Amino acid sequence: MKTGLFVVFEGGDGVGKTTQLRRLAEAMHTAGREVVMTREPGGTQLGLQLRQLIMHGDHVAPRAEALMYAADRAHHVETVVMPALERGAVVLQDRFIDSSIVYQGGARGLGPEVERISRWATNGLLPDVTVVLDMAPDESRMARDLDRVERETVEHAQTIRQGFLTLAQRDPARYAVVDAARPEGEVFHDVFSAVRAALKRKREILAASGIQAPPSPRTP
Amino acid sequence: MKTGLFVVFEGGDGVGKTTQLRRLAEAMHTAGREVVMTREPGGTQLGLQLRQLIMHGDHVAPRAEALMYAADRAHHVETVVMPALERGAVVLQDRFIDSSIVYQGGARGLGPEVERISRWATNGLLPDVTVVLDMAPDESRMARDLDRVERETVEHAQTIRQGFLTLAQRDPARYAVVDAARPEGEVFHDVFSAVRAALKRKREILAASGIQAPPSPRTP
Repeated sequence: MKTGLFVVFEGGDGVGKTTQLRRLAEAMHTAGREVVMTREPGGTQLGLQLRQLIMHGDHVAPRAEALMYAADRAHHVETVVMPALERGAVVLQDRFIDSSIVYQGGARGLGPEVERISRWATNGLLPDVTVVLDMAPDESRMARDLDRVERETVEHAQTIRQGFLTLAQRDPARYAVVDAARPEGEVFHDVFSAVRAALKRKREILAASGIQAPPSPRTP
Repeated sequence: MKTGLFVVFEGGDGVGKTTQLRRLAEAMHTAGREVVMTREPGGTQLGLQLRQLIMHGDHVAPRAEALMYAADRAHHVETVVMPALERGAVVLQDRFIDSSIVYQGGARGLGPEVERISRWATNGLLPDVTVVLDMAPDESRMARDLDRVERETVEHAQTIRQGFLTLAQRDPARYAVVDAARPEGEVFHDVFSAVRAALKRKREILAASGIQAPPSPRTP
């Protein structure tokens, strides 16, 4: 039984994942928990090397790219995330399986197999809570006379956003959708509430198994 | 419709795959066919780099390793094998999906998902014929008083052999199991017969679609 807590941040680019993750890390650290901040892709040396091959080599076949990201994930989960959760740490991770589903599976048309492969890569590990930082692409811009590239960029951002919302609706108990189009402190208030609720659930599960949970943080 | 022919050689280490593949390449070349000799892993620059990471880096999680081999395969099929088959070439390949199933899926206990991932990686491409070069591990040695490591090596070779035979039995029309414990020329006679039969089947399939097949080799 893992006594740690696995918290994942998801959402489009620029929604504030890094900022919120850092604030949460500080709060958990202050509460006396071991905190591991990590990310996919690139949370391990192997992951960085795989990313290097994808970004800076010649053309990589799309399925090969998806499989390399899955390999990064398998290695990261086995060597970083699982050992930390077994130690009782709070693991705060920037992007996980949902990003692969939404970016490679959805937007790039590789289908549901991308999700299946990631589930195998991680040996079935699920986050205790996934925080989706949700923000509408600048829709007011759509009203203006955009050129084709601008319009496609906004449409892509809308597809990505809808992808995360659909995943959250599929399994609401494991997700917290937080409106990220507000001041940082207000957003953090909701993020922290969601994580505290996840800690409480985890403590109840552990208690039912007779395992004492690590300490819980108070509201910052 | 691909007018080329995809021939894969499988079997344990040391059964003579390289020798037979070269003889077949010569015969097909003499018959006027474009021949592409390739291998997995390592048939592309990306594949070589992935192999380098697996072989010469630090510990790689087993699932990550399986996914990196699958990535190599996806890239190799998309950038080398498929273009060659579309040009009408005969592609002679040293190891393919069956090796992953037998070595990673079977012997290493990663289960049937390894096969499923490979099928996705290759977008469903199947060989026209898989030649399994079959040879019993030196069973006479088992009678002697082997130490533990020697015994495990022979047992491993038996598991690998049985793995290939089981795959061949599953889909006999696409396999040719050739007794490789004979003189090279005799083995090649059977290999060549199997490939000629596959060429004949392919020609019939193409003819039924009104497509003219590339020339066929005579018995060497």
